[in-house]
Amino acid sequence: MSKTPITVAYGDGIGPEIMQATLRVLEAAGAHIAPEVIEIGEKVYLAGNSSGIGSSAWESLRRTRVFLKAPITTPQGSGYKSLNVSTRKALGLYANLRPCMAYAPFVPTRHPAMDVVIVRENEEDLYAGIEHRQTDEVYQCLKLITRPGCERIVRYAFEYARRQGRKRVTCFVKDNIMKLTDGLFHRVFEEIGAEYPDIARDSMIVDIGAARLADTPERFDVIVMPNLYGDILSDVAAQIAGSVGMAGSANIGDQCAMFEAIHGSAPDIAGQDLANPSGLLNGAIQMLLHIGQAEVAERVHNAWLRTLEEGLHTADIYREGQSHQRLGTQAFADALIARL
Amino acid sequence: MSKTPITVAYGDGIGPEIMQATLRVLEAAGAHIAPEVIEIGEKVYLAGNSSGIGSSAWESLRRTRVFLKAPITTPQGSGYKSLNVSTRKALGLYANLRPCMAYAPFVPTRHPAMDVVIVRENEEDLYAGIEHRQTDEVYQCLKLITRPGCERIVRYAFEYARRQGRKRVTCFVKDNIMKLTDGLFHRVFEEIGAEYPDIARDSMIVDIGAARLADTPERFDVIVMPNLYGDILSDVAAQIAGSVGMAGSANIGDQCAMFEAIHGSAPDIAGQDLANPSGLLNGAIQMLLHIGQAEVAERVHNAWLRTLEEGLHTADIYREGQSHQRLGTQAFADALIARL
Ligand SMILES: CC(C)[C@H](C(=O)O)[C@@H](O)C(=O)O
Ligand SMILES: CC(C)[C@H](C(=O)O)[C@@H](O)C(=O)O
Repeated sequence: MSKTPITVAYGDGIGPEIMQATLRVLEAAGAHIAPEVIEIGEKVYLAGNSSGIGSSAWESLRRTRVFLKAPITTPQGSGYKSLNVSTRKALGLYANLRPCMAYAPFVPTRHPAMDVVIVRENEEDLYAGIEHRQTDEVYQCLKLITRPGCERIVRYAFEYARRQGRKRVTCFVKDNIMKLTDGLFHRVFEEIGAEYPDIARDSMIVDIGAARLADTPERFDVIVMPNLYGDILSDVAAQIAGSVGMAGSANIGDQCAMFEAIHGSAPDIAGQDLANPSGLLNGAIQMLLHIGQAEVAERVHNAWLRTLEEGLHTADIYREGQSHQRLGTQAFADALIARL
Repeated sequence: MSKTPITVAYGDGIGPEIMQATLRVLEAAGAHIAPEVIEIGEKVYLAGNSSGIGSSAWESLRRTRVFLKAPITTPQGSGYKSLNVSTRKALGLYANLRPCMAYAPFVPTRHPAMDVVIVRENEEDLYAGIEHRQTDEVYQCLKLITRPGCERIVRYAFEYARRQGRKRVTCFVKDNIMKLTDGLFHRVFEEIGAEYPDIARDSMIVDIGAARLADTPERFDVIVMPNLYGDILSDVAAQIAGSVGMAGSANIGDQCAMFEAIHGSAPDIAGQDLANPSGLLNGAIQMLLHIGQAEVAERVHNAWLRTLEEGLHTADIYREGQSHQRLGTQAFADALIARL
């Protein structure tokens, strides 16, 4: 079997160490991948490229169409564009899939039964990047919602639910206030949902939906929503499932896909072998499924679960007095590899 | 002591029954108020006034400058404007104060130590109501952030913290993406916060801030944020403190103030004597403080706490097997009155 070329970026902050751990696991598991390393993020920004990514990196991405990306740091200042956002847009990655699942009792959580997948629209909304200063005192940002954008993401959510044997898709919007924009999202949700009689559907105003998600996440299955709500509420869901440090995310487009951790580059703990590689690893598992290496994906996932089940954890998950053992980033990867 | 005139609206759905219960409690507690009842909401909308509020109602509000408002229902359809929003804007109610506190062990919660106050900007952001259809397929909504708006709400938050002896104000924004709009909010937070050396301050990106709030709310004190984040996260905070059904809110302006429950009109349980009047009552307690009747406010608050402590609850809070007793809306008010 020939190796699938993938583009890899080590990123900033804790990026390099969790990417190293992740790639070691993938190699040990026998993933048939040929990583091409590109340079993006802080160094590129500071070398004067305000997009954080150069043309040879784009060239690799356009060729491999599969991107495993560690967290990066965007320097402060209005001159720098978020690479996360520009990559999602440039590659047309319209769907951001964020599974948030409890691993109780191995990872402490108040919501042991939760298993929620957040399907976040990934290109529109306030992330369209249209922002301007009207006067010294008045600033505006444009929220953009389009029918094709809504159709793509809503259809993706229902197709995903069907494929995964999930029972219900819930829509979160604020269409009592944003009657046109969020109203459109809601309307398209109803229209397209009607084509999936096998999947139950309902919708909630995002405020009360968020409250219920935080309080009783086990009642949700798949939730689809515009970009910004999805950004905020996937962090909430991942954290109450166990930790934002453990959730991975798939950014899916018609041509390309990008896989990452949902957390950031955590510069405060960088280089100390403290970071949890699980978020990126869960992104990588989604990548393996995407490129048709389901068997390797399952092998990695099972070994990861076994590692957790034996109480082996990085510092963020480790709790004293719970027969946990505390490991560094690379030792955690080693423990996982030993269980492959 | 002469009675303070206040404007009262019974609202829609469960509004009338919780307002009745609340006013009965206030009267029994000896509140020196002279309620003027106005008609707003569903009936007014359906009679052809798309704002849901008529000119005599405005006249009363402009005169009394104090508004105790039950939840109202805005009919579906893009022709109807949210009365909550238009009232806040017409009366210049720039600060929305939402205390979210646990009453453990009397009210079940996973976060017994939480005591968070959310200070929500109340006029700007996507709530400015500037929304339009560009083409059949493209809809836009404008997010507006102004320097005077930021200054008012941030100063309010720090003044509130100082007055209440609170120790820290945290700011939630998404200024890694909205560098101009949320960037302005953040910058003003730093500028004005520097005038309050007695109050600690920090800021978080709203996604991770929301995750921490949902997971470990006890680490927060006062949190100030733009309108939409405040809408969503005050529902989250109120719910995990016990129930959105219990939180009251003060909408404060330089001239007027409006007090309400943070929950909606819940038409599904209307007229069944099931609703919890506590949210509106907590709004009314804030109103009593606002009009200088602190003693009555304290009397009501203490009787309310005693009622909870004795396990007397409406259906939303009641749990079987916890030596709780289940009461209807009016019986709950009676129990409270008996403890004044
Ligand atoms: C880093 C930031 C631009 C990004 C986002 O807001 O989408 C992150 O929070 C995420 O959720 O992937
Ligand atoms: C009813 C609605 C307009 C309102 C809001 O969004 O502000 C409500 O959710 C609230 O929080 O008071």
